[in-house]
Amino acid sequence: MKYVQDIDNINTWLQKFKGNKVFFLVDENTHEYCLPNIISNLPDLKEYEILEVEPGEETKAIEVAANLWMSLAELGAERTDVLINVGGGVVTDLGGFIASTYKRGMSFINVPTSLLAMVDAAQGGKTGIDLGGAKNLVGTFTHAELIYLDASFLETLPDVQLRSGFAEMLKHGLIADKNHWDNASKSYPVITEELIATSAEIKQSIVDEDPKEKGVRKLLNFGHTLGHAIESFMLQNELPILHGEAIAAGMLIEAELSKQYCQLPEQEFEEIVIQIDKVYTGLPILEENIDDILEWLKFDKKNKGGELRFSLLEKIGQCVFDISIAVSVIKTALLNYIPK
Amino acid sequence: MKYVQDIDNINTWLQKFKGNKVFFLVDENTHEYCLPNIISNLPDLKEYEILEVEPGEETKAIEVAANLWMSLAELGAERTDVLINVGGGVVTDLGGFIASTYKRGMSFINVPTSLLAMVDAAQGGKTGIDLGGAKNLVGTFTHAELIYLDASFLETLPDVQLRSGFAEMLKHGLIADKNHWDNASKSYPVITEELIATSAEIKQSIVDEDPKEKGVRKLLNFGHTLGHAIESFMLQNELPILHGEAIAAGMLIEAELSKQYCQLPEQEFEEIVIQIDKVYTGLPILEENIDDILEWLKFDKKNKGGELRFSLLEKIGQCVFDISIAVSVIKTALLNYIPK
Repeated sequence: MKYVQDIDNINTWLQKFKGNKVFFLVDENTHEYCLPNIISNLPDLKEYEILEVEPGEETKAIEVAANLWMSLAELGAERTDVLINVGGGVVTDLGGFIASTYKRGMSFINVPTSLLAMVDAAQGGKTGIDLGGAKNLVGTFTHAELIYLDASFLETLPDVQLRSGFAEMLKHGLIADKNHWDNASKSYPVITEELIATSAEIKQSIVDEDPKEKGVRKLLNFGHTLGHAIESFMLQNELPILHGEAIAAGMLIEAELSKQYCQLPEQEFEEIVIQIDKVYTGLPILEENIDDILEWLKFDKKNKGGELRFSLLEKIGQCVFDISIAVSVIKTALLNYIPK
Repeated sequence: MKYVQDIDNINTWLQKFKGNKVFFLVDENTHEYCLPNIISNLPDLKEYEILEVEPGEETKAIEVAANLWMSLAELGAERTDVLINVGGGVVTDLGGFIASTYKRGMSFINVPTSLLAMVDAAQGGKTGIDLGGAKNLVGTFTHAELIYLDASFLETLPDVQLRSGFAEMLKHGLIADKNHWDNASKSYPVITEELIATSAEIKQSIVDEDPKEKGVRKLLNFGHTLGHAIESFMLQNELPILHGEAIAAGMLIEAELSKQYCQLPEQEFEEIVIQIDKVYTGLPILEENIDDILEWLKFDKKNKGGELRFSLLEKIGQCVFDISIAVSVIKTALLNYIPK
């Protein structure tokens, strides 16, 4: 995996490219707003084909995957060709999975176009699709050849999309770098390329240390164990929610658990609550939803031996993983999250 | 990957096993004839579940894969659990693919029960399912934790199944070991555990040298470039055919090409024809089928840049790869194969 901020790096890669064809995976938005600019800046691009999917999480489905594999076969794609995924996390997750399994694996390049994809989804080698309502139930650990970062794509996005990715940026500060937390909190709603690069570097250094999530990579799960359960619950009940909103809620509840189990200082806890509340409104979760959310926790791929384990903060910028918490405690924390 | 001939090795593996549950993937035949014996010899097996699929190539389908991923999720399978695939190549290919993509990858053990799986499919890390009529269009390169070899399973199989696997055994001799070719040819229809182990070792040493088929592993494609095209054509037209029969035909035609392009001596060519004809009858291919078979060649994942490349014999026991052959020449060789 190599994070690059100059599109010439893709050109250089294409010069050494041993395949015949380049395939672009886009959604209808990135097809219109991002792809023309990319293609016009790739003078070494020769033969290419474009595969388009619908935008939205529903696209990370087995039926869409089957159609893409078939399309690649019909277009004569070979194992030595390359797939360039241009889009948000849906496109990079799906495209990475397609590429990593087509004829047992072709190369892929990610061009993330949303803040969430730039600081999180497009890097780290996690690919996947959803199945039976469970997010990323099926996928692989496979790194992109290159990840091309261009903050100018964010200009084409509504603010709500920025808010979604910003939660991951805050998380990177909380788990690994107090300075980054301070800078990102202060800067919002302005997101500089520098902030994006710092977030990407934090993630990359953690992933490099533990590519397959056997240990330290679990730190990246802060806010996500509960966040994913909440997100799955909301999607199942057709309550629209951004990934970042679910993660923000997850971070608030897991910060509460951090206070109880990892001595996160009260003052830092308050600071986290204030900063997150500035950007994210509370979610419409009701007391009667809590058992359903706890059920979703069991689906979480990060649990082990039926235990519920969390990554929690000792202080802002320092996180520990594999903290086992009883279901009754989690239930209380969820209840506390619900506005009275 | 570790090839073992004593089931105690699985027990030892299970003793160190960090997951909770063992999942067995079987078809209805191996469920009845093989699984009870395996389970009774695994005293360290604790909690387990059994997943059963229909026997037959049609099982290597995306719909079956989706059901298996869902079943694993419903049974609470975690990334740290293990899938033990008990069956022929269909079960080990499918099970390997399911395991390597479930929650981004759980471990798997292969227990091949057919000769074909023992000497070929169950080892080497190639997993996959078929899609749109193309064999193994979707899959991964992922090694089994262990492969357990037990020739006694072959006693439960009809002779026709032995014949299917025997083609791969002959191939291992042809591409890498003249002694093995001589021994296997002489021994048939008796297949000893020693012959199986030698075939497995030949394959393993080639795979170890080149796990992702970038170079020397292509030697294993001898007989398979045309063999797969013939097999796909026959299946598409609902003409039942064993994998080994298709590969035997592929080896005959590619031996002819070897004579023309790689100086395979006439006498050795004749010997190959005699031995293969002793075991395999010719396939009912007609002149009008040849263009269809050539079309299937284009689907072959091993081709590069639209060229048709073959692994061919210089002599019995010595093979070279990446030999480019014009379509017109292949067409003539196919025509020569058809009985006049």
